[in-house]
Amino acid sequence: MKAINVGLIGTGYIGKSHALAFRAVKSLFPEIPEIHLSCVCDLDPALAERMRAGFGFADATTQWRDIINDPEIDLVSIATPNAFHREMACAALEAGKHVYCEKPMGVAYGDAKTMAEAAEKAPGQTMLAYNYLRSPAFAHALKLVGGGELGRIYFLRGVCEEEYLADPNAPFSWRCLKGMAGAGALGDLGSHLLCAIIALMGPPTDLVADMSTLIPDRKESEGSSEAMKVENEDVAHALMTFAAGATASFTTSRVSWGRKNRLAFDIYGEKGSIHFDQERMNELQLFEKDASEENNGLRTILIGPSHPPYDRFIPSGGHQLGFNDLKTIEIAKFAEAIQSGKPVFPTFADGLSIERCMDAIMSSAAARAWRRVSG
Amino acid sequence: MKAINVGLIGTGYIGKSHALAFRAVKSLFPEIPEIHLSCVCDLDPALAERMRAGFGFADATTQWRDIINDPEIDLVSIATPNAFHREMACAALEAGKHVYCEKPMGVAYGDAKTMAEAAEKAPGQTMLAYNYLRSPAFAHALKLVGGGELGRIYFLRGVCEEEYLADPNAPFSWRCLKGMAGAGALGDLGSHLLCAIIALMGPPTDLVADMSTLIPDRKESEGSSEAMKVENEDVAHALMTFAAGATASFTTSRVSWGRKNRLAFDIYGEKGSIHFDQERMNELQLFEKDASEENNGLRTILIGPSHPPYDRFIPSGGHQLGFNDLKTIEIAKFAEAIQSGKPVFPTFADGLSIERCMDAIMSSAAARAWRRVSG
Amino acid sequence: MKAINVGLIGTGYIGKSHALAFRAVKSLFPEIPEIHLSCVCDLDPALAERMRAGFGFADATTQWRDIINDPEIDLVSIATPNAFHREMACAALEAGKHVYCEKPMGVAYGDAKTMAEAAEKAPGQTMLAYNYLRSPAFAHALKLVGGGELGRIYFLRGVCEEEYLADPNAPFSWRCLKGMAGAGALGDLGSHLLCAIIALMGPPTDLVADMSTLIPDRKESEGSSEAMKVENEDVAHALMTFAAGATASFTTSRVSWGRKNRLAFDIYGEKGSIHFDQERMNELQLFEKDASEENNGLRTILIGPSHPPYDRFIPSGGHQLGFNDLKTIEIAKFAEAIQSGKPVFPTFADGLSIERCMDAIMSSAAARAWRRVSG
Amino acid sequence: MKAINVGLIGTGYIGKSHALAFRAVKSLFPEIPEIHLSCVCDLDPALAERMRAGFGFADATTQWRDIINDPEIDLVSIATPNAFHREMACAALEAGKHVYCEKPMGVAYGDAKTMAEAAEKAPGQTMLAYNYLRSPAFAHALKLVGGGELGRIYFLRGVCEEEYLADPNAPFSWRCLKGMAGAGALGDLGSHLLCAIIALMGPPTDLVADMSTLIPDRKESEGSSEAMKVENEDVAHALMTFAAGATASFTTSRVSWGRKNRLAFDIYGEKGSIHFDQERMNELQLFEKDASEENNGLRTILIGPSHPPYDRFIPSGGHQLGFNDLKTIEIAKFAEAIQSGKPVFPTFADGLSIERCMDAIMSSAAARAWRRVSG
Repeated sequence: MKAINVGLIGTGYIGKSHALAFRAVKSLFPEIPEIHLSCVCDLDPALAERMRAGFGFADATTQWRDIINDPEIDLVSIATPNAFHREMACAALEAGKHVYCEKPMGVAYGDAKTMAEAAEKAPGQTMLAYNYLRSPAFAHALKLVGGGELGRIYFLRGVCEEEYLADPNAPFSWRCLKGMAGAGALGDLGSHLLCAIIALMGPPTDLVADMSTLIPDRKESEGSSEAMKVENEDVAHALMTFAAGATASFTTSRVSWGRKNRLAFDIYGEKGSIHFDQERMNELQLFEKDASEENNGLRTILIGPSHPPYDRFIPSGGHQLGFNDLKTIEIAKFAEAIQSGKPVFPTFADGLSIERCMDAIMSSAAARAWRRVSG
Repeated sequence: MKAINVGLIGTGYIGKSHALAFRAVKSLFPEIPEIHLSCVCDLDPALAERMRAGFGFADATTQWRDIINDPEIDLVSIATPNAFHREMACAALEAGKHVYCEKPMGVAYGDAKTMAEAAEKAPGQTMLAYNYLRSPAFAHALKLVGGGELGRIYFLRGVCEEEYLADPNAPFSWRCLKGMAGAGALGDLGSHLLCAIIALMGPPTDLVADMSTLIPDRKESEGSSEAMKVENEDVAHALMTFAAGATASFTTSRVSWGRKNRLAFDIYGEKGSIHFDQERMNELQLFEKDASEENNGLRTILIGPSHPPYDRFIPSGGHQLGFNDLKTIEIAKFAEAIQSGKPVFPTFADGLSIERCMDAIMSSAAARAWRRVSG
Repeated sequence: MKAINVGLIGTGYIGKSHALAFRAVKSLFPEIPEIHLSCVCDLDPALAERMRAGFGFADATTQWRDIINDPEIDLVSIATPNAFHREMACAALEAGKHVYCEKPMGVAYGDAKTMAEAAEKAPGQTMLAYNYLRSPAFAHALKLVGGGELGRIYFLRGVCEEEYLADPNAPFSWRCLKGMAGAGALGDLGSHLLCAIIALMGPPTDLVADMSTLIPDRKESEGSSEAMKVENEDVAHALMTFAAGATASFTTSRVSWGRKNRLAFDIYGEKGSIHFDQERMNELQLFEKDASEENNGLRTILIGPSHPPYDRFIPSGGHQLGFNDLKTIEIAKFAEAIQSGKPVFPTFADGLSIERCMDAIMSSAAARAWRRVSG
Repeated sequence: MKAINVGLIGTGYIGKSHALAFRAVKSLFPEIPEIHLSCVCDLDPALAERMRAGFGFADATTQWRDIINDPEIDLVSIATPNAFHREMACAALEAGKHVYCEKPMGVAYGDAKTMAEAAEKAPGQTMLAYNYLRSPAFAHALKLVGGGELGRIYFLRGVCEEEYLADPNAPFSWRCLKGMAGAGALGDLGSHLLCAIIALMGPPTDLVADMSTLIPDRKESEGSSEAMKVENEDVAHALMTFAAGATASFTTSRVSWGRKNRLAFDIYGEKGSIHFDQERMNELQLFEKDASEENNGLRTILIGPSHPPYDRFIPSGGHQLGFNDLKTIEIAKFAEAIQSGKPVFPTFADGLSIERCMDAIMSSAAARAWRRVSG
């Protein structure tokens, strides 16, 4: 079993979480190949070097193409702003690398399409970092739904919301620029919910959407008097229909006071329902239709060793995983894909169906009309 | 202050809850006029008489027109199936009575229009029994929103759902018939949420909707092999826009396992957010933007004497009101309207804007297109 | 079936809740005898008359002995301060009345003993108003424990706490006086928890306790500079042992910020556990040992028609009962006892075992030693 | 700044969590010295070697004295069963090492005393692995209490409970043997709660306790017919008093169905209250006395960047830390102590006051009498 040599592009917070996870994963998942931290890249040589030293990479560079061009590197990890994903991912794929890329795929649907096409032609495995999928609670929901525990699905009601731009006085950020971020709340947060919906129910056939920018202008920075125009939405809502007659209601927002990382959904089927909230990611609520009315109710399942791969981290229940553990699980999954040659959801192809939804939401909101998505 | 003589049509559960409330209200709200239980009507003479005796009505009848024609009766309380509301309410209004009527107004938008027109011409006060409005927690939410505590409203996300038809084997009921019930989940449950939304945000300007019937056929009765066609929806979703740029997401369902009476919403504004769930109707959650990040979070307000009219029922906090208390508050409000001559929300005119939304939801779902509602 | 003629002593809040309940009970529980409101008593003639008129009593008086001496009156309802319970209850019992009395029985253990002895000799039924027992959720807990659903009981952990004297600046009240209130938090709040414990587990055999007065002096009234000495405890803790090897931990407090009416317990047995909190009195949490680890968790049961007598009030689940409904259930239970001649828990004899615990707690705390309670 | 060379004894789950944390800590807390994984020890050479390879230790051994005798090793990490703590820790201290040791200190109070005495004489820093202390939520509670945010403390009510021996059919384990485990629930679980209480309130002056063994015999192993005698308690309760008039109620249990890792407490003071539950370790509930009754309630604080050292792991709120992150924080704290020469709670001396409480609880339960603990 050959070791996997990793090149990481990006040293911001999310880059660090990649590095931490690459380092920890083999100890927890000894069945995967060895992971070598070969090279880390940042435009700023000091940052690149600090990261190299801090996390134990063999090398550092300021040229991301050095990583692409290094024949020893097997896996390229892309943790840069969205606007750079397409170029880097395509180059890496063409160079025969496996590509692990932060979400969303790019700033426009065209980026995603290009990336998915490149992936289709290339030998490498791909994975998008929709990390909330990796919580054992979400995995358990998926298992229950996939295993028919809820029977036929009736509908889902989901939200992904945070408060980071709720304050009208919060200053402008790159996230408000179409050219840098693409969509607003939808790209940053809503894409996670779309990924969860598609994992649970498959892609929607049709949707209709509404998008609104509640605070159209924001001051350039704390204390500045200059106003900048916000180019993307603060809130997006959508209704979706699915092949089998199921439906979904979808809301995403970056102006939701009191919410720090709320990715929550209720999913109802003919035999029961499941309820999840990422802000309590170590819990899952389940209701099962039951003969006994009097003793029935939503049960709060506390994630433990019977919800893999929790047991890789802690042998006894109730101790809880954290966000960084999700990254480790994600990388273990990607290493499995590389080892087995079998793609693991969500690949670039899967990501494309997320991006197709995002595109349809934007187009539906602009046209104020239903849009066909798939099928 | 003249006493109010009450005639009640209907002796089912909801009729009984009217009678209980009419009897209790004056002891708790001594400032309102005396209430006399004059006459109760049911087609079945035995039921009418049992109700007369059980609740202390002076008289009983099997002819609802007896109540309309009795010049001594001031207030007609309508607790019959929806299909009878229009005829009874219009007759009562024409006879100069005050009319307290269960929701929704009728089985079709035309009913509601006729009733609202009759109300406009008549001297009597009208009130629709959207009783969840009356909980002190909801009243407090209304006060906070109305008083600007949240600042400008960004968006609302609401659901009204129960499980009563979630089981595909649950037998057919009159609620599945268009001619008897009108809409399905929307009329029975969703109308309550529409009322709450309109109370909090005013009527929407536009909406788009989707409706689905998950179980198209149901057996006629427990054990029967005959199937009946379900004529209305199990689930309805809508997106709404409002004059000031706010939006709402709306879902109603009668197939939601685990939910008994969930009328829940989150409302977000520029200074905070409020969260309510009728299944915990003695609580309200509030988040207020605050200088201190580290000590801030959603607070769970437990309803007590500082949330009127809780103090009319119990002088100390945390003891809780129940559903029947909401009916008592509702009747106190209506008695106040009668006494003062000033209408109290929701009158038939207000109800018409709820019905206009329902009509637009049905029309939008049928046409798969946005619909203008108001403004 | 002869009607029950009721005489009520006391017109404060709790007297009013008695009157409301006496008036409503027959409509909801038609199987019990008719209830006639015969006479209400208050030292203040204006209050007595206002209550008579407001609630429809036939008569009013300022002399409580008028009620005792009236041969037509069957049931005496005592809603006065604790210091008067003994004399009134004993007189009523000697006169052959049924006695429904607020809790605790008196201000000292001797009062309770005298009352229980009087009850033993008299023909009338007795009931103490430990009203939280009456919630369908608590009744369901009792049924589960009594029916062996939890198997052998391991231990209980209970608390009864409020915040009404948490503020050191809250002024002195009669509740701080031994001669008026007896014990402090223990008599006012803890007695409810003791009643629940005894209902669930029987009386303890032994206990050890600690009591503390956190704020030894309080100003006489708002704005006053004069300090009054607090004569009883703010907090009491106890440990208890039971015949079958089970144990309990008990805490009661009137200085618990944030708690309005928290009567909460966890009870653990060999097959599961139950969790209750009066602040969410329409819910019960149940955990049952189960083969399936992965789908198990505490379930939140929402009280509904399968939890009698909820169905007497409302036919569909999730609508919730309130505190005043508990009073109605309590009176229905007492009317059943009168009708059947079979005592219903808690009679004065049952109350005596609650008071014996209170006495043992006080004596144990004073002596700093374990005390034998029973068995 | 010299690197810290680490020798780890024990390769079970908790040993692995040490190794993971030692490896991750410097990347997250760059201000501490470098950490070198020098040597790992296990009696089983295969396990020792697997651990060496899996976590990157320089060396492996089967002789723990090799680690003590290695002059290059600075820090000895003890992750063995309790019965070995004393000998290893004392040897390491005498050899001038810093000692990081799992809790509790030993199997009897004498062990703890010996260890604390050894620590007092030795130059090395000591730390006991009471890891729940390290959650940012608990740290925030400590900061609020220590900073006087609650004013004078009235009382605390705490529980530490799990379900691992709730099933009477669960087989015997070394945890049931006095000579191996020392106390039962008290040593394994209750010691964590004692540590939290002492951190929040200082050591108690006096206590009284009760201990019970609910299942006195257990089958030797799954399927075995042989019964083994359980030598220590399943449940322990205690009442405690503190120097300043505050009190505490304490319960620990290993037979609590439905609880996986519940270390929960309520702490009440003159200005507010705090509520924590390890099963939701990323939340803290706070109630602050407030002028506005109507908008006040318990707030659920979701831990984020304003609760250090959360920000070392994740820059945005609501993403959550997990149990393994607590170990990393713990080791960062210990590295700080080593670097600065200033002890960090809980040292062996602090641990001794935890053990003194445990000893007093056992002695009080045996004698059925209050026991003096300190002061």
